[in-house]
Amino acid sequence: MIKALIFDVNETLLDINAMKTGLAEVLNGDETLVDLWFANLLHHSLVDVASSQFHDFIDIGAAALVMVAYSKGIQLTQEHAKQTIKQHITSLPPHDDVAAALKALKQKGVTLIALSNSSSAGLDAQLSYANIKSYFDIVLSVESIRTYKPYPSVYHWACQQAEVAPNDTLMVAAHGWDVSGAKAAGLNTAFVERPGKMMYPLGLAPDYSIESLDQLIPSVFNA
Amino acid sequence: MIKALIFDVNETLLDINAMKTGLAEVLNGDETLVDLWFANLLHHSLVDVASSQFHDFIDIGAAALVMVAYSKGIQLTQEHAKQTIKQHITSLPPHDDVAAALKALKQKGVTLIALSNSSSAGLDAQLSYANIKSYFDIVLSVESIRTYKPYPSVYHWACQQAEVAPNDTLMVAAHGWDVSGAKAAGLNTAFVERPGKMMYPLGLAPDYSIESLDQLIPSVFNA
Repeated sequence: MIKALIFDVNETLLDINAMKTGLAEVLNGDETLVDLWFANLLHHSLVDVASSQFHDFIDIGAAALVMVAYSKGIQLTQEHAKQTIKQHITSLPPHDDVAAALKALKQKGVTLIALSNSSSAGLDAQLSYANIKSYFDIVLSVESIRTYKPYPSVYHWACQQAEVAPNDTLMVAAHGWDVSGAKAAGLNTAFVERPGKMMYPLGLAPDYSIESLDQLIPSVFNA
Repeated sequence: MIKALIFDVNETLLDINAMKTGLAEVLNGDETLVDLWFANLLHHSLVDVASSQFHDFIDIGAAALVMVAYSKGIQLTQEHAKQTIKQHITSLPPHDDVAAALKALKQKGVTLIALSNSSSAGLDAQLSYANIKSYFDIVLSVESIRTYKPYPSVYHWACQQAEVAPNDTLMVAAHGWDVSGAKAAGLNTAFVERPGKMMYPLGLAPDYSIESLDQLIPSVFNA
């Protein structure tokens, strides 16, 4: 029985498309490079873990932004990159379905957890800006355990913090790699089909695949 | 003393820009998406390791290509993606400096190793097409140990195969994450500054940073 839901934050709850224009300002206005930046950020977060390093997600993001800029002949300092990301990533709006779905789930009495690769301070600022922080019983940044998703230790740590077993927990994410990683760690999973997002075809299949968070209660609790 | 050199293959020895047009054919001709594809391929290779999975590099590449296509509203099957990548990644030309540098190093009597995330069959086809296979004493694909670079076990395994200690070995790569990973594993490192490539700013600094492979002998052996 599902007793707790763990939500990924960036893209799953918050619309990071909203930062494309702002971030593209340091990339000669080329918004197509913003997707490339985010993919590089995720890759280098795992490079850090694989090589026994750990850096703040914003610092890795700044390094990735400098590298992407460099690859296109654009000069950008690490500090300018960091300030640009910080400014825009902490002012993302929630997707339309988020507040109502979290409210309904809270009324059901399940434990609601936010689990993000963002830093503690960044995550706090993000949830506050989006006005959804109060829905969560627990807010967790991987900064506390210095390992990034999708390492199984991250999901297990989140379950321990909520005092709930992995198989009583549902991970909800719009990234196939996050869903697959949580499944490999023994959690139940729901993939949120945000526009343009599809499951990682080679990943472990999700238990639920939903178009909107409104479908969580009927799919998971009233089935 | 450096007794063996380990070379990364894609981008370090072979020019993967040569496959941009071919790969873009299945992406509505948008070559900017090819960089996004490669970043997603690398990210998902590490996602696999983190979640105790392993798939062939070409299969991960095909999955990443399908996902990138989907994100832009382009329909693409896994099989079509795989055949497209296979065709183009096995017909890449070497960079201009490669053959002469390998020849000169071979005459110095050091052990030359190719170490790639590509599959065994794919790597063999790549080095044969580029006409540089005969320079290598050992050709290693991570397929044999089912873990991707930059995990330290990959570099240590390569050193064991060549019967050389990590600190007698030089890893040569055009990717900052590969150089940093090798350094974390105890190897000496040289970063090759291919056009548009810079070191991962948060990575472990390379012992050498060179514009061309011609600089390997003067920098490493005649210093």
